[in-house]
This record gives sequence, structure tokens and C-alpha cells, in this order.
Amino acid sequence: MSSQMAREIAEQPTAVRATLDSLVPLRGELRTVAAGRNQVLFVARGSSDNAAVYGRYLLETHSGVSAALAAPSIATHYRRERDLSSTLVVSLSQAGETAEIVATQDWARRCGAATVAITNDPNSALAAAADLPLVTRAGQEFAVPATKSYTTQLTALAVLATALCPDPELLDADLFRVPKEIERLLAESAVDDARVLEQAVSALEQADSILAAGRGLLLGTALEVALKIEETCLRPVRGLSYADLRHGPIAVVGEGLAAVLVAASDGPLRSAITDLAADLASRGATVVGFGGDEEFRAACDVAVPGPELIEALTPLALIVAAQLAVESLARRLGLDPDAPRGLSKVTQTDRSHAPTKG
Amino acid sequence: MSSQMAREIAEQPTAVRATLDSLVPLRGELRTVAAGRNQVLFVARGSSDNAAVYGRYLLETHSGVSAALAAPSIATHYRRERDLSSTLVVSLSQAGETAEIVATQDWARRCGAATVAITNDPNSALAAAADLPLVTRAGQEFAVPATKSYTTQLTALAVLATALCPDPELLDADLFRVPKEIERLLAESAVDDARVLEQAVSALEQADSILAAGRGLLLGTALEVALKIEETCLRPVRGLSYADLRHGPIAVVGEGLAAVLVAASDGPLRSAITDLAADLASRGATVVGFGGDEEFRAACDVAVPGPELIEALTPLALIVAAQLAVESLARRLGLDPDAPRGLSKVTQTDRSHAPTKG
Repeated sequence: MSSQMAREIAEQPTAVRATLDSLVPLRGELRTVAAGRNQVLFVARGSSDNAAVYGRYLLETHSGVSAALAAPSIATHYRRERDLSSTLVVSLSQAGETAEIVATQDWARRCGAATVAITNDPNSALAAAADLPLVTRAGQEFAVPATKSYTTQLTALAVLATALCPDPELLDADLFRVPKEIERLLAESAVDDARVLEQAVSALEQADSILAAGRGLLLGTALEVALKIEETCLRPVRGLSYADLRHGPIAVVGEGLAAVLVAASDGPLRSAITDLAADLASRGATVVGFGGDEEFRAACDVAVPGPELIEALTPLALIVAAQLAVESLARRLGLDPDAPRGLSKVTQTDRSHAPTKG
Repeated sequence: MSSQMAREIAEQPTAVRATLDSLVPLRGELRTVAAGRNQVLFVARGSSDNAAVYGRYLLETHSGVSAALAAPSIATHYRRERDLSSTLVVSLSQAGETAEIVATQDWARRCGAATVAITNDPNSALAAAADLPLVTRAGQEFAVPATKSYTTQLTALAVLATALCPDPELLDADLFRVPKEIERLLAESAVDDARVLEQAVSALEQADSILAAGRGLLLGTALEVALKIEETCLRPVRGLSYADLRHGPIAVVGEGLAAVLVAASDGPLRSAITDLAADLASRGATVVGFGGDEEFRAACDVAVPGPELIEALTPLALIVAAQLAVESLARRLGLDPDAPRGLSKVTQTDRSHAPTKG
């Protein structure tokens, strides 16, 4: 129980609270930087990319802007210029030193974009070059699998959404409850609900193959669960959207598959994700649900409770339950959750791009 | 050898030529519809979504616009309005009847977008509601796995790119050679190179797991190869970008994995994809390459030749070699390539959205 990853999971209420305290006062500056920009382009890879998928849905549902994820190779390899004078570019990188992300942010500035960098290191190359750095307060993260750096990135994205949102009260009430909800999930996992969590771990351990699916505001969570299991437990896991699953891959769903579904307790996608849980179960899959409403939980084989938050903020806390399951699964498999094989803390996409430091 | 899928694969030179003949004269109308729009938003699912990924890179590299893929749930479930007065929305659907795609195109019109629909049916709901339908000339497609409907969609996207491109000659010379290059690949596969293709099929048949990767302009091809193997051969396959693979999933690469890599014979990503082939091979994977230059082919365990086309147009022909492999693999596995389990020709993402016809 004393892996570094477990300790960092437990630090998340503090890290998210500190990040809120630090970034909420920057809303005015955010509005100034974003003034006149009606679209947002995210630049990220890995766990940060999963955070960006959340940011994209959050901004499109709550802030009235168009949002998309950049294809960095357009900047780094194809070297095509473009008019980004109406665009706010938001780059995400925990360490702020991934050369591809730094280079793409530089390209965006040259193309006329305003730039915001979400990073955990105020002295990083990414922070130094941005119009406005949003520095998360995760503290140093030692375990290779990102946990508190990921949830604090989501926190920064939620602050960005409230800054750009015409009606920030829609989010604010629940935003300041997030640290408490994470605390509650951690406390429950330590007592009664641990049995549910261990059932989830057993289902994943026994599966021949695993997929993780979600939709809309929860899609990024599904992708992050998939990446986390894969890089920490060395089991190949597919993370995909509800819709992509229905358009092809559902053909191969059957016995031996564990399907991890992530859901919110409210929102317009509730019945769709419950239908999917029932459909996957009817095809023989073991359905492991995280979060969701009562009907969703009833349709799952194992249902791990999620936070009591609106759909738009559920991802900030729901991932914590999945992190606990992943850390436990890694130990059951005899793996070190802190140092998975073959990965390092700062990933360079291309070998030829040396990091500027670290 | 007489599956419907095989016959439809063989019809592609004719289908692509007919589509070029039909759509090239519409370039002027395309420029009129797109006038004043500096960004493109694609709406698609399934194979059409993979075509859209190609369209996104093609427009961003050759037409100077920003391009992205829409999240349909923003329209269909979250029902958020947005200012799309600077946006050209391009919807892709073979049958033109997927309710979610039709509904998202309607939403885009209400938000001020100009709309182009790429579909194989001029009488479809999608074509009827678009400002300008681009009707592909695939002819009726009977096999469930999309082949000629997919390559004709790519053809329509290439015509769109030439219409929006400041310098269409960059693409035109090779564009009109595509049907001949497909013919050449089909003819070669029928004689000498069949042995290489059958080696590729054997490698896939013997693998415990399969992934397909590509990058930039070839990323959509990798995703389509993955979907095609999965839905036709009922083997779970992950399609992912080169960069996403490096940021996590590469940790689980080892013996028993077949990695399908797709590459062009020119372009700025050549050395990167060759590096990846060597890296995957050194981790014990069997690397099955489609296309690429000489160095790439030397780094692969099996190398299936691709077309002699510039990178930007390679996807229109390269997928044909992969389709042949998929059709052959399905028959080896005792499956009917024309009617894979659990899929129908028009997929509805949500059960509650009845198709308007068909």
C-alpha cells in the first residue's frame, strides 16, 4: 500500500485545492488573453492529451467556443503556416519540456495565436514561452503514471472554462466541492467500498482483454483509464468513444472481455451509456462501471461509486477511483506501479527532438 | 476469391475514375460554397471518420485552413449552439442516412455553417439537406466492410483540397494517376507480389494481437486498416497514431504482436516511421509494412509494396493492398468477408435515432 503512486493518488485533494486557490484569481487575465478569440486549439500528448479531450468537450458545452485538438506534425514536420489570429492555443504538459509540444506552441505564436500553457513547472520552457502560464500545484510527481498532475490539469481546464463561460455560476458551485468529493471517494475506498473496488480489480485481472469507453464529457476519462491500465499494468487496453465502439469494434465483444465504462450521475448521455452497459453484458462481456446513476449501476456487473458532482466536473474526481483500481491491479500482477517497463517521465515523440532540459 | 468484397475491391479503379470525372467539374461550386470560410469541421463515424482524419491532414497541409473533427454529441445530446459563420462543415456518410450525421449537419446549418455532404447516394437525407452534395460514384456496395465507398470518399476529399488549395497543380498531376496506380497494385497482387501479401496475411493470422499505426497524412489509413481487420476478421485491433503509440502503449509491445505500419514513399515523416518499425521489431513485434520507401521496407519483417504517388495522395491507393490482405485473412479464418457478425450497413449510434429510411 505504500507505492509512490498510492501516495500521490492520496495527495489529490490537496493538489486540486492548491491549484484552485492559485488559478481562480487568474480568471480576469485569462479573459484578457482570450479576448477576441472564438476558438481553442489544444496541444498535448499522452495523459495530457486525455485531459485535452475533456477540455474540448467542457469548452464546447459550457463556453460557447469551438475547440479541437491540434495535430502537432502540421507544425513540427509539415511546417505549414496558418492564420491563428482568432485562436487561443492551450498547451498541456506536466513537465513542460516535451520538445514537440514546446515547438508546436512556438509555431502557434508565430501564426498569431494567443497562448496559455498548463504545466506543473513554472520554470519550464513551455511556461516561459506562453502568454499566460497556468501553473498547476501538484507538487513533484515521482511515479511515472500521472495521477495528481492529471487531475490538476483538469482543474486548470475547469478554471479556464469558468473564465470563458458566460455563466460561471453553472460550474462554480461544484468546482469548489471537487477536493471534498475526492476526499470522500478516497475515504470510502479505504473502508466499505474497498470490496467493490477489489471486485473491479479482480474482473480486470481475470479478463483476456480490456476496453474502456465513455462519451462526451466523460470520453477523456475513458481514454485516461485505458492509458493508465496499459502503462501501469502492461495489459493492452483500448480506450474509445461510445460511438466508435458501436461503429465496428462492438463486433468483437464477447466473453473474456472486461469493459470499463465511465459515467456521470446526470447529463444527457445517461440513458445511452446504460444501454451500452446492457448491450455489452448481453454479448458476454464483464461490465465494470465507474460512477453513473442508479440504472447504470444496475446494468453493470461491478459498479464502483463515483462522485456527487455535475457531469461537467465529474471527470475531476471519478478518475481517482480508477487510479486506485489500477494501482491495486499492478501490485496484484507483481508489477511496480511507480516504474512501469519502457516508459520515462518526459516522453519525446521523436528521437531527434532533444529535450531542452530534464 | 469470389466474395462480394473481393469484387468491390477490384472495382475501385473504375469507381475512383468515375468519381473524379464527376466531382472535378464542381471545383468552382466548391470554392463558391467555401468562400469566406477559414475552417473546416468534419462530421462522420466509422470508416467515414477515418476518411475525415485523412481530410483533416490533407486540408491542413495543402489548403491553409484549420480543420477538425466534430464531436456530434455537442449537437445531438448537449444541444449547444455555436457560431459557425466562418466554418465549412463537411459531412461524410456512404448511405447518407445515419441519423446522427444528418442531425449534426442540420445543427451546423442552423449555426451558420456552409455544408458539403460527401455521400454515395444523391437521394439521401444528407445530400438533400447540404448546400453542395459531392456524390461519389462507387456504385452500390453490398459487402458490409466499406472498400470502394471509402476510396471514393478519399477521392472526394482530394478534390475538395484541390478546390481550396492555392496551388492545385501540386496535387493534380498525381490525382489523375490514382486509378492507374490502384490498377497496378491489383494486377501485381494477382501475380508476383501475392506471395508478399500472403506473408502479411500469415503474420496477422499467427499474431496474438495486432495494432496498426501511421502518422500525419497516413494516420487515417492506419485507423481504417485497424477497423477493417477488426470488423471483417473479428480480431481486436488497435489503430493509433505513431505519437500516441510512443506515449504509453509501446510499453506493452512484445512478441506475439503484429504491428501493421502504413507509410508513404516520400514526405517529412519517412525517417520517423522507419525508426518506429525498427523500434517495434527490436521489442519482438512482427512488423508488417504497407508502402514506404526502401529504408522503411528494409526495417519491416514483411513489406507489401505501395503506390508510386506523393504522400498526400498515397492513402487513396495504399488502402487497396490492405483491403486485399483483410479479405484473404477473413477467408483463411473461415469467415464470410461480406457479412461480418453483428454489423449492418447503416449503423445508428443511438438506438433511439431511427433512420429516416433504409
